[in-house]
Amino acid sequence: MSSKSITNRAAAAPTLPLWIVGTIGIDTITTRRGRFEKLLGGSLTYAAAAAAFFTKVGSVAVAGDDFPDAFKERYQRFGIDLSGVEFVAGETFNWEGVYESDMVNRRTIHTGLGVLADFAPELPATYRESPFILLGNIDPVLQLRLLDQASGCRFAAIDSMDLWINTGRAALIKAIGRCQLVTLNDSEARQLTGEFNLRRCAARLCEMGPEYVLIKKGEHGAFLFSRSEMAIIPAYPVVEVRDPTGAGDTYAGAMMGYLAAAGRVDFDILRQALLHASAMAAFGVEEFSTERLERLTHDELQARIAELRAMAAL
Amino acid sequence: MSSKSITNRAAAAPTLPLWIVGTIGIDTITTRRGRFEKLLGGSLTYAAAAAAFFTKVGSVAVAGDDFPDAFKERYQRFGIDLSGVEFVAGETFNWEGVYESDMVNRRTIHTGLGVLADFAPELPATYRESPFILLGNIDPVLQLRLLDQASGCRFAAIDSMDLWINTGRAALIKAIGRCQLVTLNDSEARQLTGEFNLRRCAARLCEMGPEYVLIKKGEHGAFLFSRSEMAIIPAYPVVEVRDPTGAGDTYAGAMMGYLAAAGRVDFDILRQALLHASAMAAFGVEEFSTERLERLTHDELQARIAELRAMAAL
Repeated sequence: MSSKSITNRAAAAPTLPLWIVGTIGIDTITTRRGRFEKLLGGSLTYAAAAAAFFTKVGSVAVAGDDFPDAFKERYQRFGIDLSGVEFVAGETFNWEGVYESDMVNRRTIHTGLGVLADFAPELPATYRESPFILLGNIDPVLQLRLLDQASGCRFAAIDSMDLWINTGRAALIKAIGRCQLVTLNDSEARQLTGEFNLRRCAARLCEMGPEYVLIKKGEHGAFLFSRSEMAIIPAYPVVEVRDPTGAGDTYAGAMMGYLAAAGRVDFDILRQALLHASAMAAFGVEEFSTERLERLTHDELQARIAELRAMAAL
Repeated sequence: MSSKSITNRAAAAPTLPLWIVGTIGIDTITTRRGRFEKLLGGSLTYAAAAAAFFTKVGSVAVAGDDFPDAFKERYQRFGIDLSGVEFVAGETFNWEGVYESDMVNRRTIHTGLGVLADFAPELPATYRESPFILLGNIDPVLQLRLLDQASGCRFAAIDSMDLWINTGRAALIKAIGRCQLVTLNDSEARQLTGEFNLRRCAARLCEMGPEYVLIKKGEHGAFLFSRSEMAIIPAYPVVEVRDPTGAGDTYAGAMMGYLAAAGRVDFDILRQALLHASAMAAFGVEEFSTERLERLTHDELQARIAELRAMAAL
């Protein structure tokens, strides 16, 4: 399968190689440099913007009738398919947060669920046969519902968060069991498995079903596991982080976009996908929202990958 | 220069390729598995034990008359030269600490300086022409004093800690300026430079004089910098950490032992030295004190290096 064969927009309702479910949000962010209001955000936004760099990507999400047309145009400039996005009456999911000076730790000032509270996603016909799926961090009951609809899925990756580990644990474990890859950050992996050591966490997560486990450690990179292998994926050391929001989503989206473009998955392809994801996430945090990704070129991405390879060569 | 030419013990008072100054200590450590009393510890102990794996190493330190003969024999089994160690009347430096369940964070219960309080090191004649020096974490005034005596030094590496950054800042900066490599952990580098970003920290540290900067990040590995290059050095992911005490000293000691055995330093040799250091430090924390290092074989070290290379290959 080549992504080239299915990215021709002129074809009638082609099956998309990849779709992503997640949130569409409007963020207000305060850093030591000031307060920045009404930024395009949400996990779907970052993940799809990153994936679109590699392949045609569909999006499953919900937004309110306050969602600006200018933001829709930004999705379209990325080439993101919006046919799985419901625009309904009400307020778009919104989040306000304050970053500490380390630009890593943050606290939430306000979360407005808005139309996300009644989100009941339905897959468009052109998504049902998609081979690659990224189940971004939403209620695991909805993740399961989408898996039921995704009859052509060959490789599903699932993300989650502490909220669902606490409140939807059984459904989450069930959903993880139906996916080929699970990605969590280190604290979430510890919380879900009850293990502290990340290699032990990965073994427990593999026992739940997935072939691959990706444990993200933020600025410290990530560990990729299969049942028999482990890879250490470095983060690119960014000099000036302006907005770390969505870095993990950018990372997961880039990984899935790369895999969908490759059309197949093995440990080494995943490792390459994550190298691309590290480089892309590093660009993403250099500016607010998806601004840097919007004008990122393939040459820039390849140059950063070469730099990261040289830094990490042993 | 080859280390082989100067490790012949039969030769009369040969110049040692490397000496290390640091503490000799007796540690009491509590982890979730229990309390372990009167362990051989101290920065000199760990660093010299690691360096001795690669080269003949001298030690500059002080111990009290309570220091057990059994511990002296352990230095001798490592092949560590003790001619720079003063054994004086009084109590050996001792430290008691409790590790949290993450086996990273710890709090100090008791520090007994003992004979360390009056430490005024003098280099033995066989150390004065040594080309490689590791100035472990002691009062920077003493580090300067030793640099004054080290007339043959070609490559000095210096370590420090928050105490000296707070109380001996001017002397520390002067000592750093006379060394070829400075190594600090991430929080110390931030504290000394006033920069948060580690690439910026490294640039400030290079401005103080050293050609190389090594910023240690514990379980997250290390960054190596020169004025024009940067390397990401992964930590080996240890499954079962029993005693993390001295891991940073093991790391620095292994690096210096490797460099002294190589007889020269450039960025790529340093990178290889740190790969060896990562593997060795990972063995060190698997058991208490220097127990695991004592029976470590070259085959075991090489196997772990191969594993780390495979994990980190991009």
